[in-house]
Amino acid sequence: MARRYDTVTFLSDYGLADEFVGVVHCVVRDLAPHARVIDLTHQIGRHDVRAGALALARAIQYVPTGVVLAVVDPGVGTDRRGIAVEVAGGEGVLVGPDNGLLAPAVAMAGGATRAVVLGRPEYILPAPGATFAGRDVFAPAAAHLCNGVALEDLGDEVDPISLLPGIIPVAREEAGDLVTEVLWVDHFGNAQLNVGPDDVEGWGSRISLRLPHSTRTATMTSTFAELGPGAVGLVLDSYGLLAVSLNQRSAAEELGLAPGDAVRLVRLDDDAGEAAVVTPVALPLRRQ
Amino acid sequence: MARRYDTVTFLSDYGLADEFVGVVHCVVRDLAPHARVIDLTHQIGRHDVRAGALALARAIQYVPTGVVLAVVDPGVGTDRRGIAVEVAGGEGVLVGPDNGLLAPAVAMAGGATRAVVLGRPEYILPAPGATFAGRDVFAPAAAHLCNGVALEDLGDEVDPISLLPGIIPVAREEAGDLVTEVLWVDHFGNAQLNVGPDDVEGWGSRISLRLPHSTRTATMTSTFAELGPGAVGLVLDSYGLLAVSLNQRSAAEELGLAPGDAVRLVRLDDDAGEAAVVTPVALPLRRQ
Amino acid sequence: MARRYDTVTFLSDYGLADEFVGVVHCVVRDLAPHARVIDLTHQIGRHDVRAGALALARAIQYVPTGVVLAVVDPGVGTDRRGIAVEVAGGEGVLVGPDNGLLAPAVAMAGGATRAVVLGRPEYILPAPGATFAGRDVFAPAAAHLCNGVALEDLGDEVDPISLLPGIIPVAREEAGDLVTEVLWVDHFGNAQLNVGPDDVEGWGSRISLRLPHSTRTATMTSTFAELGPGAVGLVLDSYGLLAVSLNQRSAAEELGLAPGDAVRLVRLDDDAGEAAVVTPVALPLRRQ
Repeated sequence: MARRYDTVTFLSDYGLADEFVGVVHCVVRDLAPHARVIDLTHQIGRHDVRAGALALARAIQYVPTGVVLAVVDPGVGTDRRGIAVEVAGGEGVLVGPDNGLLAPAVAMAGGATRAVVLGRPEYILPAPGATFAGRDVFAPAAAHLCNGVALEDLGDEVDPISLLPGIIPVAREEAGDLVTEVLWVDHFGNAQLNVGPDDVEGWGSRISLRLPHSTRTATMTSTFAELGPGAVGLVLDSYGLLAVSLNQRSAAEELGLAPGDAVRLVRLDDDAGEAAVVTPVALPLRRQ
Repeated sequence: MARRYDTVTFLSDYGLADEFVGVVHCVVRDLAPHARVIDLTHQIGRHDVRAGALALARAIQYVPTGVVLAVVDPGVGTDRRGIAVEVAGGEGVLVGPDNGLLAPAVAMAGGATRAVVLGRPEYILPAPGATFAGRDVFAPAAAHLCNGVALEDLGDEVDPISLLPGIIPVAREEAGDLVTEVLWVDHFGNAQLNVGPDDVEGWGSRISLRLPHSTRTATMTSTFAELGPGAVGLVLDSYGLLAVSLNQRSAAEELGLAPGDAVRLVRLDDDAGEAAVVTPVALPLRRQ
Repeated sequence: MARRYDTVTFLSDYGLADEFVGVVHCVVRDLAPHARVIDLTHQIGRHDVRAGALALARAIQYVPTGVVLAVVDPGVGTDRRGIAVEVAGGEGVLVGPDNGLLAPAVAMAGGATRAVVLGRPEYILPAPGATFAGRDVFAPAAAHLCNGVALEDLGDEVDPISLLPGIIPVAREEAGDLVTEVLWVDHFGNAQLNVGPDDVEGWGSRISLRLPHSTRTATMTSTFAELGPGAVGLVLDSYGLLAVSLNQRSAAEELGLAPGDAVRLVRLDDDAGEAAVVTPVALPLRRQ
């Protein structure tokens, strides 16, 4: 008997309009009544593996010990593999398709210690069609893990190195500028970039942003409320990255920003030491 | 003391913007703290009893032993009856309005073994208005069933035959064609028809679809990914029915399909035996 | 050791598209595994403190004994205070920002018996940025309360009188008319006014409504179904207030009503005694 788990943390692109998410809950409840299912979100864009992978990577440090069930699965029913990946020596197991969805979260959790390919019929729900692997393959695997079924009993072990990697875009320097990418636009319209405050250390409190449709000067800050009306901020967000933001308005909407867009950060002449003269309202970057 | 239950599976058209769903959870938690509530979905179209009935019927085989709480209730406050319907000799009890919402799920679960009409004041929450029966009538009934209150104590028994039946459209043959109906359009834009692969057995791997706005040739398949870009599929879905689908795009949106639309399936001349010649990429229908 | 709680009832403006709500669930699960989290709603309009306060006030009488976690927090990261407010001598504790969000619910629950300002580092999750107090400050406070941490250990006590009050608009009489305000438009398009049946006692069964874009005669009723096609109702809603409603259609959409809009109720000449003559289908107001 392997370790038992009592929490399944669940993310998908199923949306909430259909009964998909509810049926997955039903399957887990039926097979592992003691397990609690936490919904991370089910509104990942349809088939948007990158967005799902990023959401999971952001959340993973808060996910309780247990099983993660993640399904964004455009290749459902094909020969793409279903996998269960153990991390942190068994503190957690991530279950889902082998399409890069799990990879960034696995990396954030310290890397895979073991992995198996799902597919043993005794752990799969029989179904007339092959289009709902979340219900028929992944949810049962998560539930059986909760019940103490050993990882190696769920499927054949594979070298974690063979799993499809996730692609996280990295910012690059170009002629002294920093070419970044919008990773995520949240519900409030903040556009998270793939750089943190360290990447612009010494640039001063104001930075020029070359956005897809305009160029704006942004103020470095740690709260939205410090931004004046209409002022664009580079706000230190809750994950330690910089987000293009407005106070109580949607920066993404007003500035026309979407995930994947390039944002070029350009150092202003009036940096650091001189900033106080040119921009008397410049705000210090508060580090926490 | 009757049988106790520990799961309430909950479906409604309440949406998630208001606190309706949360308040129902509160009522169940307050009255039956041990019960777990699973949300099937709350985004059934407003007052769309047919859509709610179909969602419940699709899900019911996965719903754990316990109570089902279903509320799509355009007649709330009128003399339409509130009912609790026992199925499978007590394995489950479905609670909701007697407007056909529960009927297809009850049938799928083997039919009603007993039924009562709700209304005993001791099992109803007093409220200033009569518009929120989910909170005041149905949730308390579900909670009291979880606590072991006997079905017959909740209300007067009625002959299950007197309950309003659900109407599930049946496909019909017409001049050798099959006139079907779109039952459901899911989050991914798949349009589920009211026919399965048996209904087109021997028709070959390609079938002509007379859609509301166009005629298309569809390929029978069991996965979305087998479909080429733009190719229309008749995909064997996870409930064993055929769905008009595209790969990673919304068939409903691109072909203009909505629940209730008629889709006429016409047998192509180049069927079965000859298909290989005319359509060299024809895919075999994989049965599972 | 103070009282322990086992339910956290959670409301926010986080929406469900991101993992915000799920991560808050994770934090509570991690710190207080025994606690159940009930989602009231997370679709309060962004930064709409008034709408959040009203939803919480409507729900509070149904919320089980335990902790309420409410986050609509446009001032996150500023010096606005985070608070925990005890009501009913410890039956409940409300946790959230001190911006008026909690105030109407606290009042509905009989007023604050004690309050503390959150901020002790040992009860806060360290985070790189200050923009997600729901995760870092409020959820941990809720979880620690569930675990039996005493209110006074969470922060410095403050006089409840110092907490920011909530603003609930009150209807006023003007030249014999009643000037009301739309408090809430629900999922079904019912526009709840800030008056109940007592406020129009003796006005008869038909009342003239001066709406923002039109004047309509409304029928007092207690069910939607009693309204004929297109007939405007003043329906006694489930919270004991009057709502401008249509049967199975959205009154808010068709009449152009939004929260905050003024609706002037004007007494018709054909009131009470005479109503029966002029309007033979006049419906009695059913009180419950």
